Amino acid sequence: MKLYGKNPVIERLKSNPKSIHRIMIDENHIDLAYIRKKCNQHGISVQTVPHSKIQRLAQNLNTQGILADIDDFAYVQLDDLLQNALDKKRTPVFLDNLNDPQNLGGIIRTCGALGFFDIVIPTTESVSVTESVLRVACGGENYLSVAKVSNLGNAIEKAKKMGFWIVGTVVEDAPSLTELTLQFPLGLVMGSEEKGLRDIILKKIDAQVMIPMKNQRMSLNVAHATSMLCYEIVSQKK
Amino acid sequence: MKLYGKNPVIERLKSNPKSIHRIMIDENHIDLAYIRKKCNQHGISVQTVPHSKIQRLAQNLNTQGILADIDDFAYVQLDDLLQNALDKKRTPVFLDNLNDPQNLGGIIRTCGALGFFDIVIPTTESVSVTESVLRVACGGENYLSVAKVSNLGNAIEKAKKMGFWIVGTVVEDAPSLTELTLQFPLGLVMGSEEKGLRDIILKKIDAQVMIPMKNQRMSLNVAHATSMLCYEIVSQKK
Repeated sequence: MKLYGKNPVIERLKSNPKSIHRIMIDENHIDLAYIRKKCNQHGISVQTVPHSKIQRLAQNLNTQGILADIDDFAYVQLDDLLQNALDKKRTPVFLDNLNDPQNLGGIIRTCGALGFFDIVIPTTESVSVTESVLRVACGGENYLSVAKVSNLGNAIEKAKKMGFWIVGTVVEDAPSLTELTLQFPLGLVMGSEEKGLRDIILKKIDAQVMIPMKNQRMSLNVAHATSMLCYEIVSQKK
Repeated sequence: MKLYGKNPVIERLKSNPKSIHRIMIDENHIDLAYIRKKCNQHGISVQTVPHSKIQRLAQNLNTQGILADIDDFAYVQLDDLLQNALDKKRTPVFLDNLNDPQNLGGIIRTCGALGFFDIVIPTTESVSVTESVLRVACGGENYLSVAKVSNLGNAIEKAKKMGFWIVGTVVEDAPSLTELTLQFPLGLVMGSEEKGLRDIILKKIDAQVMIPMKNQRMSLNVAHATSMLCYEIVSQKK
């Protein structure tokens, strides 16, 4: 698959250079010396190509003049993700049917930067870790694991059996996140952009929580809500 | 100016219907009964138009079948914004040269939903409240004020003289946000996507703060970082 954009490629060069097959740089971009140097160090081939070619390959997305051929994204097995999370005190984040690459990418970026988070997504009715997602994730994918599961409810059940306490966000009739004492090991569940958490998922949750909003008529973006939750998790973990 | 997308238009109908001149609905979208009802209540003209027309008017952006002609966005004067923030215990958020509409829109959405925030942006070298920003803001613009200023440093100085304690986010050598006791009335300053806070702005800040990230090599998206800051502000205000 392809990785494009300056930050995503620089992050990948730093943390996982072996996954890069080759890099193409737009002939109009002469400010990419750092990238060339890193590629030299790791023996990664760098081609300078015409602007039109890079635009065509990237289907006119905003490449910032750089495009890398990389390994396909490597999902992990749910069992491995959960066991590792338990051992290393990480928090699995279960995403219930997200459909916007911008949101999944934003969540991967925040979770990767904050650290100690992994992600579980359903195989169907959910966006996967696509090229657009990696563009937004800006390297976050190098600092976490993602598992794809056929049934998110079963995955949550499995986590519960392993001892994870599962918290899910709702928009009414729940304690405020600022007041809830989280229990660890902790798993977090976030609902989809349009529908929030499905009933079948809600039933499996140990504690519901609300982000305190003054303007209840409004809704938060799910990726921003996840950032607030993850920040609070980091905060309470200390 | 134009407002498009289901959520942005529904939010506007709820909170500021007078700013809507007329609404156009894509003939292929028959699921917008709620919007038609609200428009009837407020005497807003609704036209059903061919799909091609709505796409042309929206320059192929994702309208979700709905487009509204609305008043131009009304900025407020800085003095009014600050005085109101002081009186109503709101927090002005100073954004130093943001250039991505997605980020400004995301910040407006979060700040509007959480409540008690207003926004100050520079006139030049910054994205304004454009149609793309409103699409992402999803109605947040109805719950806060935005002031445009020629010099952000001077605006911060003015806030300080009025008694606001100014906190700014940096990426190293500062206390963690989870450990800093915020002082109110509070003003928040966030840097641009690429460069963070400029030195000239940094000098004016009362306290620097860092979001605790395990992976320091990574960077957070500025809109997500703002969400975490705003959440912590709401949390400490309680």
